[in-house]
Amino acid sequence: MADLIYGINAVREALQGRRRKPLELFILLDAKSARLEDLSEEAGRARIPVRQRERQDLDRLVGHHHHQGAVLKVEPFAYVSLDELLERWRTSGRKAFFLLLDGITDPHNLGALLRSADAAGCHGVIVPKDRSCPVTAVVDKASAGALEHIPLAQVTNLARTIEELKREGVWVYGLAGDAETELLYGADLCGDLALVVGSEGEGLRPNVRRHCDGLFAIPMRGGVASLNASVAAGVALFEVVRQREV
Amino acid sequence: MADLIYGINAVREALQGRRRKPLELFILLDAKSARLEDLSEEAGRARIPVRQRERQDLDRLVGHHHHQGAVLKVEPFAYVSLDELLERWRTSGRKAFFLLLDGITDPHNLGALLRSADAAGCHGVIVPKDRSCPVTAVVDKASAGALEHIPLAQVTNLARTIEELKREGVWVYGLAGDAETELLYGADLCGDLALVVGSEGEGLRPNVRRHCDGLFAIPMRGGVASLNASVAAGVALFEVVRQREV
Repeated sequence: MADLIYGINAVREALQGRRRKPLELFILLDAKSARLEDLSEEAGRARIPVRQRERQDLDRLVGHHHHQGAVLKVEPFAYVSLDELLERWRTSGRKAFFLLLDGITDPHNLGALLRSADAAGCHGVIVPKDRSCPVTAVVDKASAGALEHIPLAQVTNLARTIEELKREGVWVYGLAGDAETELLYGADLCGDLALVVGSEGEGLRPNVRRHCDGLFAIPMRGGVASLNASVAAGVALFEVVRQREV
Repeated sequence: MADLIYGINAVREALQGRRRKPLELFILLDAKSARLEDLSEEAGRARIPVRQRERQDLDRLVGHHHHQGAVLKVEPFAYVSLDELLERWRTSGRKAFFLLLDGITDPHNLGALLRSADAAGCHGVIVPKDRSCPVTAVVDKASAGALEHIPLAQVTNLARTIEELKREGVWVYGLAGDAETELLYGADLCGDLALVVGSEGEGLRPNVRRHCDGLFAIPMRGGVASLNASVAAGVALFEVVRQREV
């Protein structure tokens, strides 16, 4: 199924098609807006079909009314397979370094996590089909271009994927907030490994947690009980970089 | 000057006055909204004066029309002085640990940074009067309660504050993205220190940069050129924690 991008700025950027091929532009019927007209013209120049639609048709298409009269259908986001991720690791000549996300449903968070994973040199990011948000224009923007560099795999069952990684010789460590967990800094992160990060509110699901080889925590030294999920992941990802390089 | 909080949810939370004393509630005149009526009743019970105002008066008060008919005047946010921060350090018996922010104008970012600084055990956060966003309800929310724990100082001139910190024996290190900068992991972060973090787009101002004792970079190992500002700060803050504890 194709994905939809909406809002004038997002559509204008997506029309350039640098990341995903634009398929069809839906624009508000009889809109008196120079900015919407510009979009129609730009789509026409790029030979993308332009359809005029009533406001309620656009509302129905995107499921709400925050589309500013412009909706663009683009090719679906191209997830890679787990096998492709493993292949990327094997041909890289580097120790395995994957990031698994369990329950990241906020698009800004997903984007920031992709950015950090790419910056730390991960081979790829893995998300489950359920409990994850789709790759939207918001994710793309928050990733600051990381989606062009780092492959993203979508799997049916995260626990099963963890077992597959373990069979390939990858150690799987979960980031946990529990006070009794061993500190991240005590972990040896120099081998082939995958980090699993949960959502801010709920953390890792018990079933995902149980399949990890180990759990590590970032020490909390102030009054708050936890870090923002993407900050926590960033701290852990760069502890891996530090241990491998220093 | 008092601060304004607007929007139904934000006003409802702020009416509880856990953080800043509510002073006066402005509510849309003749609004037929049960949620607005609830706010008026709640304010009445808490003996906070309620004033009914025309929509355009509310628009003028907050400078835009995204107030949903509810505007609450609260006591101004209580910044602490630099001297109070220094005093907090001296009585803590721990090595100095401050976070200075140069040009963080996004309220979500400021909130996340306050949360990370508190989680890492910083003695306080310092922002300049210019190039910083005020402490709004958005900042408060994004800080996940950190503002209740960590003091925030506002200074007129960040470069002068850096000099004051240096006179007190504090080493001041800036986080820089330049490829030629020494890596963070090579720095000795065990002494009394202050970290300076700039905005994502522009980094540290040249004048701020020049006053730092040293500049350090987080290694970028993927395709993106930088990390999100609050992730970068998180990585640096917890490298300090690691060095001091391990």
